[in-house]
Amino acid sequence: MTSSLKKSVLIIGGGAVGAIAALNLEVGGLASVTLVLRSNYNAVSEHGFDIKSCDHGSIPAWKPSIVRNSIPDIIKESLPPYDYILLCTKNIPDIPPTVVNLVAPALPRNNTHTTLILLQNGLHIYRPFLETHPQTPVLSGISMIGSEETSPGQIIQDEGDKLLIGAFPNPNIDTPSSAALEFVNIYKNGGKTDCKLSEDVLHDRWRKLVYNACLNPICAILGLDTGRLRLAANGEVTEHLVRPAMQEIVEAAKANGVVLDEGVVQMMIDADPLQSYLSPSMYSDVRKGNFIEHENLLGEPLREGKKAGVKMPTIEVLYHMAKGIQWRTMEKRGMVDIPSKNV
Amino acid sequence: MTSSLKKSVLIIGGGAVGAIAALNLEVGGLASVTLVLRSNYNAVSEHGFDIKSCDHGSIPAWKPSIVRNSIPDIIKESLPPYDYILLCTKNIPDIPPTVVNLVAPALPRNNTHTTLILLQNGLHIYRPFLETHPQTPVLSGISMIGSEETSPGQIIQDEGDKLLIGAFPNPNIDTPSSAALEFVNIYKNGGKTDCKLSEDVLHDRWRKLVYNACLNPICAILGLDTGRLRLAANGEVTEHLVRPAMQEIVEAAKANGVVLDEGVVQMMIDADPLQSYLSPSMYSDVRKGNFIEHENLLGEPLREGKKAGVKMPTIEVLYHMAKGIQWRTMEKRGMVDIPSKNV
Repeated sequence: MTSSLKKSVLIIGGGAVGAIAALNLEVGGLASVTLVLRSNYNAVSEHGFDIKSCDHGSIPAWKPSIVRNSIPDIIKESLPPYDYILLCTKNIPDIPPTVVNLVAPALPRNNTHTTLILLQNGLHIYRPFLETHPQTPVLSGISMIGSEETSPGQIIQDEGDKLLIGAFPNPNIDTPSSAALEFVNIYKNGGKTDCKLSEDVLHDRWRKLVYNACLNPICAILGLDTGRLRLAANGEVTEHLVRPAMQEIVEAAKANGVVLDEGVVQMMIDADPLQSYLSPSMYSDVRKGNFIEHENLLGEPLREGKKAGVKMPTIEVLYHMAKGIQWRTMEKRGMVDIPSKNV
Repeated sequence: MTSSLKKSVLIIGGGAVGAIAALNLEVGGLASVTLVLRSNYNAVSEHGFDIKSCDHGSIPAWKPSIVRNSIPDIIKESLPPYDYILLCTKNIPDIPPTVVNLVAPALPRNNTHTTLILLQNGLHIYRPFLETHPQTPVLSGISMIGSEETSPGQIIQDEGDKLLIGAFPNPNIDTPSSAALEFVNIYKNGGKTDCKLSEDVLHDRWRKLVYNACLNPICAILGLDTGRLRLAANGEVTEHLVRPAMQEIVEAAKANGVVLDEGVVQMMIDADPLQSYLSPSMYSDVRKGNFIEHENLLGEPLREGKKAGVKMPTIEVLYHMAKGIQWRTMEKRGMVDIPSKNV
């Protein structure tokens, strides 16, 4: 295959997940990647990424085909539309810009050519695009990678890249499963990763929420990694907080027609080896003073579960605590007004 | 009244609450106070307390009759038994020593002379003494003071000392309400404070829990003072987290025969003026790396409520989160073993 036949892929967000996705796509030889960076742009544009990867080995000073620090405005810049846009940023609808507005310059509202892939966690994240981009095929990407950016441009991937790709529902177009299959083939062509077609996107997203809606906020709120959480109070916090929360997600999924496998709660409790002391992303975000993705990870499953008549008292508390934490971050960033103290 | 007729009062714990209690008792002229200090002993024994008080004015370099840095061992030291022992420490049954063991050298198990007063928060804190000191009259002290020790020995009291004293139940002795009345008279003799007999100790303790079981842990967990908590997420955290938690305490009290006043939930939500941005004690403790009193503030009302058939899902989550926070403090103090990290 010659270079001109390569698919053009725009990746927005070049942190630990986006950088490995870019590397993997370029290594496969079927894609040419434009990577949009923000906080690490200067480091990467000057020195490239230094990547230590269990899939790819040690790769110093690596860059994808194009590195940018802004979203391409394909009309103003007279660029051809991308074949794929891969969104690897956080998805935080309560803090502007929304992902719809973020991607807008590279994805005209009447687009039919570009396939959008949301490599982000949470439920129903495609729904805003149904309104703004009704003819755009939108795919779900669920990543189970373990990777971290230790400092700008320094990526350590210590757990293999597992990616599930599938089509989100869209009543306006034929289910774009052919686009999903094509992207899977492009992604896995390098032979280094485990990329598969998701047979049931909704099932896979609810399943991942059993971990993400529970361990993410509980670790973030308590300031404990997943290993310490299992040790805390001789396992009592797991039994009386984590397990009930996970069970509520399983019930909410069931009431929404998604039957998860029998042992999923125990499997998610044990998912991280105790002695690896991992920090779920929401806990890392809180420590770094970043905003958290509680609307898609907690708010949506809570709303869907309650709508279907499921009682979710634990998730309800976690959700409103997450709102408090988000507000605290907004205050730290000067985004809310605090009346002066009466002395 | 001559000095020899003064009642002897041992106060254990000379922080912001104990220091003002000592001052108040000595100012009243009917008591001679021995005050046991720990972390601030050196500062106070050398320079005394510097007290700025809305009740007493500015009092520099003040000391009670006796200042000590250990609990008096009345047998070994051949001391007469105290008339009153006032416990002003935290009460944290899950972290040794228990208050029973703490007070033991000054209060023999067969004591009948000394009246013990527990100036501490929470439910059923007298129960351990029923077993170890069956013949000791035990009084409840509920303090509504606003005072703070800003550095060792430096006390600022900016809210009047309001104290409710009453007898805890004890089937082995006549209800020691005469001792309660006597102590009220000693305490209020200086004319500076509002000290009253509690007509219903259980009612008063459940009522204070509407604040303490809810705002204490929620502020501690979210890292927000009571003013910010009310502002957070446009009041949503108050409506969906604080109010349901308080309502559960009201229901648990009711199921235990204690009917609280109709408007108590709203009254407690509004108790601290928004623009005073106050930190409930549990939040202060977490910030200082101290242990928290979650067993008496959350665990006991939760157990009593559930025993009486009340559903308390919000308090249940708060209680187990508090357990996680306590464990985190234990880890920081080297009190738990963490298996080494697998790399």
